[in-house]
Amino acid sequence: MDMMKGAMSASDMPKGMDMSMLEECLEALSACMQACVMCADADAGEGMGRCAAMCSNCADMCGTMMRMMLRMNGWDMALMMSMMESTMAMCRACSAECMMHAEMSEHCRMCAMACDQAAMALEKMLGSMREMAPAM
Amino acid sequence: MDMMKGAMSASDMPKGMDMSMLEECLEALSACMQACVMCADADAGEGMGRCAAMCSNCADMCGTMMRMMLRMNGWDMALMMSMMESTMAMCRACSAECMMHAEMSEHCRMCAMACDQAAMALEKMLGSMREMAPAM
Amino acid sequence: MDMMKGAMSASDMPKGMDMSMLEECLEALSACMQACVMCADADAGEGMGRCAAMCSNCADMCGTMMRMMLRMNGWDMALMMSMMESTMAMCRACSAECMMHAEMSEHCRMCAMACDQAAMALEKMLGSMREMAPAM
Amino acid sequence: MDMMKGAMSASDMPKGMDMSMLEECLEALSACMQACVMCADADAGEGMGRCAAMCSNCADMCGTMMRMMLRMNGWDMALMMSMMESTMAMCRACSAECMMHAEMSEHCRMCAMACDQAAMALEKMLGSMREMAPAM
Repeated sequence: MDMMKGAMSASDMPKGMDMSMLEECLEALSACMQACVMCADADAGEGMGRCAAMCSNCADMCGTMMRMMLRMNGWDMALMMSMMESTMAMCRACSAECMMHAEMSEHCRMCAMACDQAAMALEKMLGSMREMAPAM
Repeated sequence: MDMMKGAMSASDMPKGMDMSMLEECLEALSACMQACVMCADADAGEGMGRCAAMCSNCADMCGTMMRMMLRMNGWDMALMMSMMESTMAMCRACSAECMMHAEMSEHCRMCAMACDQAAMALEKMLGSMREMAPAM
Repeated sequence: MDMMKGAMSASDMPKGMDMSMLEECLEALSACMQACVMCADADAGEGMGRCAAMCSNCADMCGTMMRMMLRMNGWDMALMMSMMESTMAMCRACSAECMMHAEMSEHCRMCAMACDQAAMALEKMLGSMREMAPAM
Repeated sequence: MDMMKGAMSASDMPKGMDMSMLEECLEALSACMQACVMCADADAGEGMGRCAAMCSNCADMCGTMMRMMLRMNGWDMALMMSMMESTMAMCRACSAECMMHAEMSEHCRMCAMACDQAAMALEKMLGSMREMAPAM
Protein backbone atom coordinates (compact mmCIF):
# COMPACT_ATOMS: atom_id res chain seq x y z
CA MET A 1 0.00 0.00 0.00
CA ASP A 2 3.01 2.35 0.23
CA MET A 3 2.74 2.93 -3.48
CA MET A 4 -0.85 4.11 -3.01
CA LYS A 5 0.20 6.83 -0.60
CA GLY A 6 2.17 8.73 -3.20
CA ALA A 7 -0.51 8.52 -5.85
CA MET A 8 -3.15 9.62 -3.43
CA SER A 9 -1.32 12.58 -1.99
CA ALA A 10 -0.58 13.62 -5.57
CA SER A 11 -4.29 13.69 -6.29
CA ASP A 12 -7.01 16.20 -5.43
CA MET A 13 -8.16 14.75 -2.12
CA PRO A 14 -11.08 16.46 -0.37
CA LYS A 15 -9.53 19.21 1.76
CA GLY A 16 -9.05 18.33 5.37
CA MET A 17 -9.53 14.61 4.79
CA ASP A 18 -7.27 12.56 7.02
CA MET A 19 -5.09 10.53 4.66
CA SER A 20 -4.11 7.84 7.15
CA MET A 21 -7.79 7.31 8.03
CA LEU A 22 -8.62 6.79 4.37
CA GLU A 23 -5.77 4.33 3.92
CA GLU A 24 -6.89 2.43 7.00
CA CYS A 25 -10.37 2.21 5.49
CA LEU A 26 -9.09 0.98 2.13
CA GLU A 27 -6.93 -1.64 3.83
CA ALA A 28 -9.81 -2.85 6.01
CA LEU A 29 -12.29 -2.93 3.09
CA SER A 30 -9.84 -4.88 0.95
CA ALA A 31 -9.18 -7.43 3.70
CA CYS A 32 -12.92 -7.72 4.43
CA MET A 33 -13.76 -8.28 0.75
CA GLN A 34 -11.21 -11.08 0.53
CA ALA A 35 -12.28 -12.71 3.79
CA CYS A 36 -15.93 -12.57 2.68
CA VAL A 37 -15.22 -14.18 -0.70
CA MET A 38 -13.37 -17.00 1.05
CA CYS A 39 -16.04 -17.41 3.72
CA ALA A 40 -18.89 -17.46 1.17
CA ASP A 41 -17.01 -20.17 -0.73
CA ALA A 42 -16.47 -22.31 2.34
CA ASP A 43 -20.04 -21.72 3.58
CA ALA A 44 -21.45 -23.00 0.28
CA GLY A 45 -19.69 -26.32 0.72
CA GLU A 46 -21.28 -26.64 4.16
CA GLY A 47 -24.83 -25.74 3.14
CA MET A 48 -24.75 -22.44 5.02
CA GLY A 49 -26.81 -20.51 2.48
CA ARG A 50 -27.65 -17.52 4.62
CA CYS A 51 -24.04 -16.94 5.66
CA ALA A 52 -22.81 -17.38 2.07
CA ALA A 53 -25.29 -14.80 0.79
CA MET A 54 -24.47 -12.30 3.54
CA CYS A 55 -20.74 -12.72 2.87
CA SER A 56 -21.20 -12.39 -0.90
CA ASN A 57 -23.23 -9.21 -0.43
CA CYS A 58 -20.64 -7.85 2.00
CA ALA A 59 -17.80 -8.66 -0.42
CA ASP A 60 -19.53 -6.83 -3.28
CA MET A 61 -20.34 -3.79 -1.14
CA CYS A 62 -16.80 -3.55 0.30
CA GLY A 63 -15.32 -3.85 -3.21
CA THR A 64 -17.59 -1.12 -4.53
CA MET A 65 -16.95 1.10 -1.50
CA MET A 66 -13.20 0.74 -1.95
CA ARG A 67 -13.36 1.66 -5.63
CA MET A 68 -15.51 4.70 -4.85
CA MET A 69 -13.00 5.90 -2.27
CA LEU A 70 -10.16 5.56 -4.77
CA ARG A 71 -11.89 7.74 -7.38
CA MET A 72 -10.83 11.21 -6.27
CA ASN A 73 -12.82 12.94 -9.02
CA GLY A 74 -16.03 11.39 -7.75
CA TRP A 75 -15.87 12.39 -4.10
CA ASP A 76 -19.20 13.79 -2.97
CA MET A 77 -19.59 13.98 0.78
CA ALA A 78 -23.31 13.15 1.01
CA LEU A 79 -23.10 10.21 -1.44
CA MET A 80 -19.97 8.82 0.15
CA MET A 81 -21.42 9.04 3.65
CA SER A 82 -24.62 7.32 2.57
CA MET A 83 -22.70 4.43 0.99
CA MET A 84 -20.37 4.24 3.99
CA GLU A 85 -23.39 3.93 6.32
CA SER A 86 -24.86 1.16 4.15
CA THR A 87 -21.56 -0.70 3.97
CA MET A 88 -20.98 -0.36 7.71
CA ALA A 89 -24.43 -1.85 8.39
CA MET A 90 -23.68 -4.73 6.01
CA CYS A 91 -20.32 -5.42 7.66
CA ARG A 92 -21.97 -5.51 11.10
CA ALA A 93 -24.75 -7.84 9.94
CA CYS A 94 -22.26 -10.13 8.23
CA SER A 95 -20.10 -10.21 11.33
CA ALA A 96 -23.12 -11.10 13.48
CA GLU A 97 -24.08 -13.90 11.09
CA CYS A 98 -20.53 -15.28 10.98
CA MET A 99 -20.15 -15.10 14.78
CA MET A 100 -23.01 -17.60 15.09
CA HIS A 101 -20.76 -20.22 13.44
CA ALA A 102 -17.41 -18.95 14.70
CA GLU A 103 -16.84 -21.85 17.03
CA MET A 104 -17.19 -24.52 14.40
CA SER A 105 -15.94 -22.58 11.35
CA GLU A 106 -12.51 -21.00 11.33
CA HIS A 107 -13.37 -19.09 8.14
CA CYS A 108 -16.42 -17.56 9.84
CA ARG A 109 -14.37 -16.51 12.84
CA MET A 110 -11.84 -14.80 10.58
CA CYS A 111 -14.50 -13.25 8.41
CA ALA A 112 -16.28 -11.82 11.46
CA MET A 113 -13.02 -10.22 12.58
CA ALA A 114 -12.42 -8.70 9.14
CA CYS A 115 -16.01 -7.39 9.03
CA ASP A 116 -15.58 -5.82 12.48
CA GLN A 117 -12.36 -4.12 11.39
CA ALA A 118 -14.03 -2.73 8.27
CA ALA A 119 -17.05 -1.49 10.24
CA MET A 120 -14.79 0.21 12.76
CA ALA A 121 -12.66 1.89 10.09
CA LEU A 122 -15.79 3.16 8.35
CA GLU A 123 -17.28 4.42 11.61
CA LYS A 124 -14.10 6.29 12.48
CA MET A 125 -13.92 7.93 9.08
CA LEU A 126 -17.64 8.77 9.11
CA GLY A 127 -17.13 10.49 12.46
CA SER A 128 -14.35 12.58 11.02
CA MET A 129 -16.39 13.43 7.93
CA ARG A 130 -19.35 14.52 10.04
CA GLU A 131 -17.10 16.98 11.85
CA MET A 132 -16.01 18.41 8.50
CA ALA A 133 -19.58 18.65 7.19
CA PRO A 134 -21.75 18.94 10.31
CA ALA A 135 -24.94 19.55 8.38
CA MET A 136 -24.98 16.07 6.83
CA MET B 1 -34.97 -12.01 -18.82
CA ASP B 2 -37.82 -14.48 -19.25
CA MET B 3 -35.53 -17.19 -18.04
CA MET B 4 -34.98 -15.26 -14.82
CA LYS B 5 -38.67 -15.20 -14.01
CA GLY B 6 -38.83 -18.95 -13.64
CA ALA B 7 -35.73 -19.21 -11.51
CA MET B 8 -36.89 -16.44 -9.27
CA SER B 9 -40.38 -17.68 -8.71
CA ALA B 10 -38.86 -21.07 -7.95
CA SER B 11 -36.79 -19.51 -5.21
CA ASP B 12 -37.66 -18.44 -1.69
CA MET B 13 -38.56 -14.80 -2.35
CA PRO B 14 -39.47 -12.63 0.64
CA LYS B 15 -43.18 -13.15 1.18
CA GLY B 16 -45.39 -10.46 -0.26
CA MET B 17 -42.65 -9.05 -2.47
CA ASP B 18 -44.02 -7.94 -5.81
CA MET B 19 -42.19 -10.04 -8.41
CA SER B 20 -42.77 -7.73 -11.35
CA MET B 21 -41.46 -4.77 -9.34
CA LEU B 22 -38.28 -6.67 -8.55
CA GLU B 23 -37.80 -7.63 -12.19
CA GLU B 24 -38.32 -4.04 -13.24
CA CYS B 25 -35.64 -3.01 -10.75
CA LEU B 26 -33.18 -5.63 -11.99
CA GLU B 27 -33.77 -4.63 -15.60
CA ALA B 28 -33.30 -0.91 -14.81
CA LEU B 29 -30.17 -1.52 -12.71
CA SER B 30 -28.63 -3.66 -15.43
CA ALA B 31 -29.33 -1.05 -18.14
CA CYS B 32 -28.04 1.72 -15.87
CA MET B 33 -24.81 -0.15 -15.12
CA GLN B 34 -24.18 -0.67 -18.83
CA ALA B 35 -25.00 2.93 -19.76
CA CYS B 36 -22.72 4.19 -16.97
CA VAL B 37 -19.77 2.04 -18.06
CA MET B 38 -20.15 3.34 -21.62
CA CYS B 39 -20.59 6.93 -20.49
CA ALA B 40 -17.55 6.81 -18.17
CA ASP B 41 -15.49 5.46 -21.07
CA ALA B 42 -16.61 8.21 -23.46
CA ASP B 43 -16.24 10.91 -20.78
CA ALA B 44 -12.62 9.91 -20.19
CA GLY B 45 -11.77 10.55 -23.82
CA GLU B 46 -13.26 14.02 -23.50
CA GLY B 47 -11.52 14.99 -20.26
CA MET B 48 -14.74 14.94 -18.26
CA GLY B 49 -13.21 13.57 -15.08
CA ARG B 50 -16.06 14.36 -12.71
CA CYS B 51 -18.69 12.75 -14.95
CA ALA B 52 -16.49 9.69 -15.55
CA ALA B 53 -16.03 9.18 -11.81
CA MET B 54 -19.73 9.64 -11.04
CA CYS B 55 -20.64 7.16 -13.78
CA SER B 56 -18.04 4.63 -12.64
CA ASN B 57 -19.32 4.87 -9.07
CA CYS B 58 -22.90 4.53 -10.27
CA ALA B 59 -22.02 1.50 -12.42
CA ASP B 60 -20.36 -0.26 -9.48
CA MET B 61 -23.24 0.49 -7.11
CA CYS B 62 -25.92 -0.65 -9.59
CA GLY B 63 -23.98 -3.84 -10.28
CA THR B 64 -23.66 -4.59 -6.57
CA MET B 65 -27.31 -3.71 -5.90
CA MET B 66 -28.42 -6.05 -8.68
CA ARG B 67 -26.34 -8.94 -7.34
CA MET B 68 -27.70 -8.37 -3.83
CA MET B 69 -31.29 -8.47 -5.12
CA LEU B 70 -30.60 -11.75 -6.92
CA ARG B 71 -29.30 -13.48 -3.76
CA MET B 72 -32.53 -14.71 -2.23
CA ASN B 73 -30.78 -16.21 0.81
CA GLY B 74 -29.35 -12.81 1.72
CA TRP B 75 -32.52 -10.73 1.73
CA ASP B 76 -32.65 -8.58 4.84
CA MET B 77 -35.17 -5.77 4.66
CA ALA B 78 -33.20 -3.13 6.60
CA LEU B 79 -29.90 -3.79 4.76
CA MET B 80 -31.58 -3.89 1.37
CA MET B 81 -33.48 -0.68 1.97
CA SER B 82 -30.33 1.10 3.13
CA MET B 83 -28.42 0.03 0.00
CA MET B 84 -31.38 0.89 -2.20
CA GLU B 85 -31.49 4.42 -0.73
CA SER B 86 -27.75 4.87 -1.32
CA THR B 87 -28.00 3.56 -4.87
CA MET B 88 -31.01 5.75 -5.64
CA ALA B 89 -29.12 8.83 -4.41
CA MET B 90 -26.14 7.87 -6.58
CA CYS B 91 -28.36 7.39 -9.66
CA ARG B 92 -29.94 10.79 -9.13
CA ALA B 93 -26.60 12.54 -8.68
CA CYS B 94 -25.17 10.79 -11.74
CA SER B 95 -28.21 11.79 -13.79
CA ALA B 96 -27.85 15.42 -12.67
CA GLU B 97 -24.17 15.42 -13.61
CA CYS B 98 -24.85 13.83 -17.02
CA MET B 99 -27.72 16.23 -17.74
CA MET B 100 -25.26 19.11 -17.61
CA HIS B 101 -23.59 17.71 -20.75
CA ALA B 102 -26.64 16.15 -22.37
CA GLU B 103 -26.84 18.66 -25.18
CA MET B 104 -23.32 18.07 -26.41
CA SER B 105 -22.88 14.40 -25.42
CA GLU B 106 -25.29 11.76 -26.66
CA HIS B 107 -23.84 9.21 -24.21
CA CYS B 108 -24.53 11.57 -21.30
CA ARG B 109 -28.12 12.08 -22.44
CA MET B 110 -28.66 8.34 -22.61
CA CYS B 111 -26.88 7.69 -19.33
CA ALA B 112 -29.04 10.32 -17.58
CA MET B 113 -32.17 8.57 -18.86
CA ALA B 114 -30.94 5.18 -17.65
CA CYS B 115 -30.04 6.63 -14.25
CA ASP B 116 -33.51 8.21 -13.96
CA GLN B 117 -35.15 4.89 -14.81
CA ALA B 118 -33.08 3.07 -12.18
CA ALA B 119 -33.83 5.72 -9.54
CA MET B 120 -37.55 5.51 -10.29
CA ALA B 121 -37.61 1.70 -10.15
CA LEU B 122 -35.76 1.77 -6.81
CA GLU B 123 -38.09 4.44 -5.41
CA LYS B 124 -41.16 2.44 -6.42
CA MET B 125 -39.84 -0.72 -4.84
CA LEU B 126 -38.73 1.11 -1.69
CA GLY B 127 -42.25 2.49 -1.36
CA SER B 128 -43.68 -1.00 -1.57
CA MET B 129 -41.15 -2.34 0.94
CA ARG B 130 -41.95 0.43 3.41
CA GLU B 131 -45.60 -0.59 3.32
CA MET B 132 -44.58 -4.18 4.09
CA ALA B 133 -42.29 -3.13 6.93
CA PRO B 134 -43.65 0.21 8.14
CA ALA B 135 -41.30 0.44 11.09
CA MET B 136 -38.18 0.79 8.91
CA MET C 1 -31.22 -2.53 -24.66
CA ASP C 2 -32.55 -0.29 -27.44
CA MET C 3 -31.02 2.65 -25.68
CA MET C 4 -27.63 0.96 -25.87
CA LYS C 5 -27.79 0.69 -29.63
CA GLY C 6 -27.76 4.44 -30.14
CA ALA C 7 -24.95 5.05 -27.70
CA MET C 8 -22.87 2.33 -29.21
CA SER C 9 -23.28 3.33 -32.83
CA ALA C 10 -22.42 6.88 -31.75
CA SER C 11 -19.12 5.64 -30.38
CA ASP C 12 -15.89 4.62 -32.06
CA MET C 13 -16.56 0.92 -32.53
CA PRO C 14 -13.77 -1.17 -34.07
CA LYS C 15 -14.25 -0.92 -37.84
CA GLY C 16 -16.03 -3.85 -39.40
CA MET C 17 -17.33 -5.14 -36.07
CA ASP C 18 -20.81 -6.57 -36.40
CA MET C 19 -22.99 -4.49 -34.08
CA SER C 20 -25.80 -7.01 -33.71
CA MET C 21 -23.28 -9.72 -32.80
CA LEU C 22 -21.83 -7.53 -30.07
CA GLU C 23 -25.28 -6.74 -28.69
CA GLU C 24 -26.14 -10.44 -28.69
CA CYS C 25 -22.95 -11.09 -26.71
CA LEU C 26 -23.71 -8.35 -24.18
CA GLU C 27 -27.25 -9.63 -23.71
CA ALA C 28 -26.06 -13.22 -23.23
CA LEU C 29 -23.28 -12.24 -20.83
CA SER C 30 -25.68 -10.15 -18.76
CA ALA C 31 -28.24 -12.96 -18.54
CA CYS C 32 -25.49 -15.48 -17.71
CA MET C 33 -24.07 -13.29 -14.94
CA GLN C 34 -27.51 -12.96 -13.36
CA ALA C 35 -28.32 -16.67 -13.68
CA CYS C 36 -24.95 -17.57 -12.15
CA VAL C 37 -25.40 -15.24 -9.16
CA MET C 38 -28.80 -16.80 -8.49
CA CYS C 39 -27.53 -20.33 -8.98
CA ALA C 40 -24.53 -19.81 -6.70
CA ASP C 41 -26.89 -18.47 -4.03
CA ALA C 42 -29.25 -21.44 -4.29
CA ASP C 43 -26.35 -23.93 -4.48
CA ALA C 44 -24.92 -22.59 -1.22
CA GLY C 45 -28.15 -23.39 0.60
CA GLU C 46 -27.92 -26.96 -0.67
CA GLY C 47 -24.28 -27.55 0.19
CA MET C 48 -23.22 -27.66 -3.46
CA GLY C 49 -19.87 -25.95 -2.92
CA ARG C 50 -18.28 -26.84 -6.24
CA CYS C 51 -21.26 -25.61 -8.27
CA ALA C 52 -21.50 -22.40 -6.21
CA ALA C 53 -17.82 -21.62 -6.78
CA MET C 54 -18.01 -22.35 -10.52
CA CYS C 55 -21.11 -20.14 -10.82
CA SER C 56 -19.53 -17.32 -8.78
CA ASN C 57 -16.41 -17.44 -10.96
CA CYS C 58 -18.53 -17.48 -14.10
CA ALA C 59 -20.62 -14.53 -12.88
CA ASP C 60 -17.51 -12.45 -12.17
CA MET C 61 -15.92 -13.30 -15.53
CA CYS C 62 -19.10 -12.55 -17.51
CA GLY C 63 -19.52 -9.24 -15.67
CA THR C 64 -15.93 -8.24 -16.40
CA MET C 65 -16.17 -9.38 -20.03
CA MET C 66 -19.33 -7.33 -20.52
CA ARG C 67 -17.74 -4.19 -19.06
CA MET C 68 -14.67 -4.65 -21.26
CA MET C 69 -16.84 -4.91 -24.37
CA LEU C 70 -18.68 -1.73 -23.43
CA ARG C 71 -15.46 0.31 -23.15
CA MET C 72 -14.93 1.35 -26.74
CA ASN C 73 -11.67 3.20 -25.97
CA GLY C 74 -10.14 0.00 -24.62
CA TRP C 75 -10.78 -2.35 -27.52
CA ASP C 76 -7.65 -4.31 -28.35
CA MET C 77 -8.25 -7.33 -30.55
CA ALA C 78 -5.66 -9.66 -29.00
CA LEU C 79 -6.60 -8.85 -25.40
CA MET C 80 -10.32 -9.08 -26.10
CA MET C 81 -9.97 -12.41 -27.88
CA SER C 82 -7.89 -13.85 -25.04
CA MET C 83 -10.47 -12.83 -22.44
CA MET C 84 -13.30 -14.06 -24.66
CA GLU C 85 -11.61 -17.49 -24.93
CA SER C 86 -11.16 -17.65 -21.14
CA THR C 87 -14.75 -16.61 -20.51
CA MET C 88 -16.09 -19.09 -23.07
CA ALA C 89 -14.17 -21.91 -21.36
CA MET C 90 -15.55 -20.84 -17.99
CA CYS C 91 -19.13 -20.75 -19.32
CA ARG C 92 -18.75 -24.24 -20.77
CA ALA C 93 -17.30 -25.65 -17.57
CA CYS C 94 -20.03 -23.99 -15.49
CA SER C 95 -22.69 -25.36 -17.80
CA ALA C 96 -21.23 -28.87 -17.52
CA GLU C 97 -21.18 -28.63 -13.71
CA CYS C 98 -24.76 -27.33 -13.56
CA MET C 99 -26.02 -30.00 -15.99
CA MET C 100 -24.99 -32.64 -13.45
CA HIS C 101 -27.69 -31.30 -11.11
CA ALA C 102 -30.17 -30.10 -13.72
CA GLU C 103 -32.72 -32.79 -12.98
CA MET C 104 -33.03 -31.99 -9.32
CA SER C 105 -32.28 -28.24 -9.39
CA GLU C 106 -34.31 -25.89 -11.54
CA HIS C 107 -31.78 -23.08 -10.97
CA CYS C 108 -28.97 -25.31 -12.26
CA ARG C 109 -30.97 -26.18 -15.38
CA MET C 110 -31.58 -22.51 -16.11
CA CYS C 111 -28.01 -21.53 -15.30
CA ALA C 112 -26.68 -24.21 -17.67
CA MET C 113 -28.88 -22.82 -20.45
CA ALA C 114 -27.68 -19.26 -19.81
CA CYS C 115 -24.05 -20.43 -19.77
CA ASP C 116 -24.55 -22.26 -23.07
CA GLN C 117 -26.07 -19.15 -24.65
CA ALA C 118 -23.16 -17.01 -23.47
CA ALA C 119 -20.59 -19.54 -24.72
CA MET C 120 -22.30 -19.68 -28.12
CA ALA C 121 -22.50 -15.89 -28.45
CA LEU C 122 -18.81 -15.59 -27.57
CA GLU C 123 -17.84 -18.35 -30.02
CA LYS C 124 -19.78 -16.69 -32.83
CA MET C 125 -18.18 -13.34 -32.19
CA LEU C 126 -14.72 -14.86 -31.83
CA GLY C 127 -15.20 -16.51 -35.22
CA SER C 128 -16.09 -13.18 -36.77
CA MET C 129 -13.11 -11.47 -35.08
CA ARG C 130 -10.70 -14.14 -36.34
CA GLU C 131 -11.84 -13.43 -39.89
CA MET C 132 -11.14 -9.74 -39.36
CA ALA C 133 -7.72 -10.40 -37.81
CA PRO C 134 -6.64 -13.75 -39.28
CA ALA C 135 -3.16 -13.60 -37.76
CA MET C 136 -4.42 -13.81 -34.16
CA MET D 1 -3.06 -10.41 4.97
CA ASP D 2 -1.85 -12.50 7.90
CA MET D 3 -5.44 -13.30 8.67
CA MET D 4 -5.83 -14.76 5.19
CA LYS D 5 -3.02 -17.24 5.73
CA GLY D 6 -4.87 -19.11 8.42
CA ALA D 7 -8.11 -19.28 6.53
CA MET D 8 -6.39 -20.44 3.42
CA SER D 9 -4.30 -23.16 5.00
CA ALA D 10 -7.46 -24.36 6.73
CA SER D 11 -9.12 -24.79 3.36
CA ASP D 12 -8.78 -27.45 0.68
CA MET D 13 -6.03 -25.87 -1.42
CA PRO D 14 -4.97 -27.72 -4.56
CA LYS D 15 -2.30 -30.18 -3.43
CA GLY D 16 1.24 -29.06 -4.04
CA MET D 17 0.25 -25.43 -4.59
CA ASP D 18 2.84 -23.06 -3.15
CA MET D 19 0.96 -21.00 -0.56
CA SER D 20 3.40 -18.10 -0.48
CA MET D 21 3.25 -17.82 -4.27
CA LEU D 22 -0.53 -17.62 -4.13
CA GLU D 23 -0.42 -14.95 -1.44
CA GLU D 24 2.09 -12.97 -3.47
CA CYS D 25 -0.28 -13.14 -6.42
CA LEU D 26 -3.28 -12.02 -4.37
CA GLU D 27 -1.31 -9.12 -2.91
CA ALA D 28 -0.07 -8.02 -6.35
CA LEU D 29 -3.52 -8.34 -7.94
CA SER D 30 -5.11 -6.32 -5.15
CA ALA D 31 -2.50 -3.54 -5.41
CA CYS D 32 -2.81 -3.54 -9.21
CA MET D 33 -6.60 -3.28 -9.09
CA GLN D 34 -6.38 -0.30 -6.73
CA ALA D 35 -3.66 1.45 -8.75
CA CYS D 36 -5.67 0.91 -11.94
CA VAL D 37 -8.87 2.37 -10.47
CA MET D 38 -6.94 5.44 -9.33
CA CYS D 39 -5.11 5.80 -12.64
CA ALA D 40 -8.31 5.47 -14.70
CA ASP D 41 -9.88 8.18 -12.56
CA ALA D 42 -6.96 10.56 -13.00
CA ASP D 43 -6.66 9.75 -16.73
CA ALA D 44 -10.29 10.70 -17.28
CA GLY D 45 -9.69 14.19 -15.92
CA GLU D 46 -6.82 14.57 -18.37
CA GLY D 47 -8.67 13.33 -21.46
CA MET D 48 -6.56 10.15 -21.67
CA GLY D 49 -9.38 7.91 -22.88
CA ARG D 50 -7.29 5.00 -24.05
CA CYS D 51 -5.31 4.78 -20.82
CA ALA D 52 -8.47 5.11 -18.70
CA ALA D 53 -10.13 2.25 -20.60
CA MET D 54 -7.06 -0.01 -20.37
CA CYS D 55 -6.77 0.68 -16.64
CA SER D 56 -10.50 0.08 -16.05
CA ASN D 57 -10.30 -3.21 -17.93
CA CYS D 58 -7.18 -4.22 -16.00
CA ALA D 59 -8.83 -3.31 -12.68
CA ASP D 60 -11.87 -5.47 -13.46
CA MET D 61 -9.77 -8.42 -14.61
CA CYS D 62 -7.45 -8.28 -11.58
CA GLY D 63 -10.44 -8.06 -9.25
CA THR D 64 -12.09 -11.07 -10.88
CA MET D 65 -8.82 -13.04 -10.95
CA MET D 66 -8.30 -12.38 -7.24
CA ARG D 67 -11.81 -13.54 -6.35
CA MET D 68 -11.37 -16.70 -8.42
CA MET D 69 -8.12 -17.53 -6.64
CA LEU D 70 -9.83 -17.09 -3.26
CA ARG D 71 -12.61 -19.57 -4.08
CA MET D 72 -10.99 -22.85 -3.13
CA ASN D 73 -13.99 -24.92 -4.20
CA GLY D 74 -13.74 -23.56 -7.74
CA TRP D 75 -10.11 -24.31 -8.49
CA ASP D 76 -9.78 -25.91 -11.89
CA MET D 77 -6.26 -25.91 -13.28
CA ALA D 78 -7.11 -25.36 -16.95
CA LEU D 79 -9.64 -22.59 -16.30
CA MET D 80 -7.40 -20.84 -13.81
CA MET D 81 -4.40 -20.97 -16.11
CA SER D 82 -6.42 -19.58 -19.01
CA MET D 83 -7.67 -16.65 -16.93
CA MET D 84 -4.19 -16.10 -15.50
CA GLU D 85 -2.76 -15.87 -19.04
CA SER D 86 -5.47 -13.39 -20.07
CA THR D 87 -4.93 -11.28 -16.96
CA MET D 88 -1.16 -11.32 -17.38
CA ALA D 89 -1.54 -10.09 -20.99
CA MET D 90 -3.87 -7.32 -19.81
CA CYS D 91 -1.44 -6.24 -17.07
CA ARG D 92 1.41 -6.07 -19.56
CA ALA D 93 -0.62 -4.07 -22.08
CA CYS D 94 -1.82 -1.69 -19.36
CA SER D 95 1.74 -1.22 -18.12
CA ALA D 96 2.94 -0.46 -21.68
CA GLU D 97 0.17 2.10 -22.14
CA CYS D 98 0.87 3.76 -18.78
CA MET D 99 4.64 3.84 -19.42
CA MET D 100 3.98 6.12 -22.40
CA HIS D 101 2.77 8.80 -19.97
CA ALA D 102 4.96 7.91 -17.01
CA GLU D 103 7.13 11.00 -17.27
CA MET D 104 4.28 13.45 -17.08
CA SER D 105 1.82 11.45 -14.93
CA GLU D 106 2.84 10.15 -11.54
CA HIS D 107 -0.31 7.97 -11.36
CA CYS D 108 0.65 6.30 -14.65
CA ARG D 109 4.18 5.61 -13.43
CA MET D 110 2.81 4.00 -10.28
CA CYS D 111 0.15 2.09 -12.15
CA ALA D 112 2.74 0.71 -14.59
CA MET D 113 4.80 -0.55 -11.66
CA ALA D 114 1.76 -2.22 -10.06
CA CYS D 115 0.83 -3.84 -13.39
CA ASP D 116 4.40 -5.14 -13.82
CA GLN D 117 4.33 -6.62 -10.32
CA ALA D 118 1.01 -8.35 -11.00
CA ALA D 119 2.21 -9.70 -14.35
CA MET D 120 5.36 -11.06 -12.74
CA ALA D 121 3.50 -12.70 -9.88
CA LEU D 122 1.10 -14.34 -12.33
CA GLU D 123 3.96 -15.53 -14.55
CA LYS D 124 5.78 -17.06 -11.61
CA MET D 125 2.69 -18.88 -10.43
CA LEU D 126 1.82 -20.02 -13.95
CA GLY D 127 5.32 -21.48 -14.25
CA SER D 128 4.83 -23.41 -11.04
CA MET D 129 1.40 -24.64 -12.13
CA ARG D 130 2.76 -25.84 -15.47
CA GLU D 131 5.30 -27.98 -13.62
CA MET D 132 2.48 -29.52 -11.57
CA ALA D 133 0.30 -30.14 -14.63
CA PRO D 134 2.76 -30.47 -17.51
CA ALA D 135 0.11 -31.52 -20.01
CA MET D 136 -1.71 -28.17 -19.91
